[in-house]
Amino acid sequence: MPAEASTLLLHSLYLVAIVAEAMTAALAAGRRDMDWFGVCVIACVTALGGGSLRDVLLGHYPLTWVAHPEYLGMTAGAAMLTALCARVLRHLRSLFLLLDALGLVAFTVIGCKVAQQMGLSLPIILVSGMITGCAGGVLRDVLCNDIPLLFRRELYASVSLLTGLVYIGLDFMLGLTSLAVPVALTVGLALRLLALRFNWQMPKFVYRDDWH
Amino acid sequence: MPAEASTLLLHSLYLVAIVAEAMTAALAAGRRDMDWFGVCVIACVTALGGGSLRDVLLGHYPLTWVAHPEYLGMTAGAAMLTALCARVLRHLRSLFLLLDALGLVAFTVIGCKVAQQMGLSLPIILVSGMITGCAGGVLRDVLCNDIPLLFRRELYASVSLLTGLVYIGLDFMLGLTSLAVPVALTVGLALRLLALRFNWQMPKFVYRDDWH
Amino acid sequence: MPAEASTLLLHSLYLVAIVAEAMTAALAAGRRDMDWFGVCVIACVTALGGGSLRDVLLGHYPLTWVAHPEYLGMTAGAAMLTALCARVLRHLRSLFLLLDALGLVAFTVIGCKVAQQMGLSLPIILVSGMITGCAGGVLRDVLCNDIPLLFRRELYASVSLLTGLVYIGLDFMLGLTSLAVPVALTVGLALRLLALRFNWQMPKFVYRDDWH
Repeated sequence: MPAEASTLLLHSLYLVAIVAEAMTAALAAGRRDMDWFGVCVIACVTALGGGSLRDVLLGHYPLTWVAHPEYLGMTAGAAMLTALCARVLRHLRSLFLLLDALGLVAFTVIGCKVAQQMGLSLPIILVSGMITGCAGGVLRDVLCNDIPLLFRRELYASVSLLTGLVYIGLDFMLGLTSLAVPVALTVGLALRLLALRFNWQMPKFVYRDDWH
Repeated sequence: MPAEASTLLLHSLYLVAIVAEAMTAALAAGRRDMDWFGVCVIACVTALGGGSLRDVLLGHYPLTWVAHPEYLGMTAGAAMLTALCARVLRHLRSLFLLLDALGLVAFTVIGCKVAQQMGLSLPIILVSGMITGCAGGVLRDVLCNDIPLLFRRELYASVSLLTGLVYIGLDFMLGLTSLAVPVALTVGLALRLLALRFNWQMPKFVYRDDWH
Repeated sequence: MPAEASTLLLHSLYLVAIVAEAMTAALAAGRRDMDWFGVCVIACVTALGGGSLRDVLLGHYPLTWVAHPEYLGMTAGAAMLTALCARVLRHLRSLFLLLDALGLVAFTVIGCKVAQQMGLSLPIILVSGMITGCAGGVLRDVLCNDIPLLFRRELYASVSLLTGLVYIGLDFMLGLTSLAVPVALTVGLALRLLALRFNWQMPKFVYRDDWH
């Protein structure tokens, strides 16, 4: 895939992903009886928080939404639409899970590319992808006062890790730059959908003591 | 109002506001049985956290309290005084609500001005005001392990949004720079006090499903 | 102590400290039934989060783990080893408390030195030490959905404050640079171990009202 096509694909997936993340975040806020403003804030933090945390940690300024305030409008608008149409969305769970999986892998690849363009080392490129893919959901859960689902659910972060590994492997190790983006997206998406379908989980570490 | 007078007014309100925020935060920490150190930390985070988050997100260094460490001393001192005199303060709820409202609008206008001086776009100026006005309280609630009140209470964030809109409208749209600060402060303060008096609320988005 | 020796001592203690923090964090994650990935994330955030927050707040880039990704590997590896060997570790509580105390004072002195090398003011040097020493544990508790223990436990933050004060006092006030690091470490460690032994606590601020 030529470089422009893969950039365009990633950008389109990015827009789909922030809208999808905003919508699922709005539903999470609704489960907590938040007001309309809270719904918009949770949506923006979930959709844009992963990239923001990455940029702050890497010192990569300006942040995406500062340079493109229209993304704030898109996420807030998607959140309000969701609150208006919640009755309909109730029946679209499978669609949301698909869009959420798309978002996860697209965010991950974008995060890898940002660190790559900053000339950072391979492990940091991988971590940058995982922060971009996963941190938004963690921030959402912290603001909603939950234990982050990420740390307890099926293969979410592992999908992000694998997506980043495939991307790095194809682009850096094998020099197959034109294949890196589409293959990483496909592999990550497939693993995520399989994990959802068969309810694959990471082993849990359960520990009890009487120290506290 | 001449530029120096409005700067002086804002600065005075800023000092009043960080002390007031520190005091209400100390009471919140006391409700959670924190020790004296925890009380000081919660007070500093609440009073200075909104501005700090804004500065980190916008890449606006050094942060206010790094350049002016005396603000840390003021907030920690106000918090300890509050813990000492809590019995008296119990009777001053109305005064606290007034000072808190003053702080909200003053922080908001200051946040707008910071983004304006960095040459950022209008939506980001508005968002910068809202982060400065509201994020300290959200950080306080996260550290105290509450669902942030901001997302569930009367018109708090909406007041910040309106204050920013009035400020931007007068300063940018109409060119009435000398009026922008005092009018924005007055309108915001009035709306907040009316919302408190008549218990105005944003509509809530209540959503239940059996997805989880 | 010559400058190189004190740098080497601090660096060795730093490595011991991040491994120890990662191990205690892994046990905390295990108490919450997190999966293996969650265990690694909590470990990295706890061990490296204090320094990261300090660097982000002070605008001190690149962050330690971005420049040294091997620290991420060390903490994640220590966390996974902990999950594997949790049965044995159950009996080593005293060792963990000692290593944790070492980490607290080593992190604090390192944080002071970073702010000092940036040419910041004395209060900020002190605050930088406290953030480096204490913030990792606060982030761990927020991610595990606890009220931060820091604000309710024995002398943790006070030890960090005292360590920083001794360091600053010897280095800046008295010019005893060669003594500053070892004496600050020793005094801080001694106070922490005494506080643990005799269960010293800061006075709590307990406040009840019917405002909410």
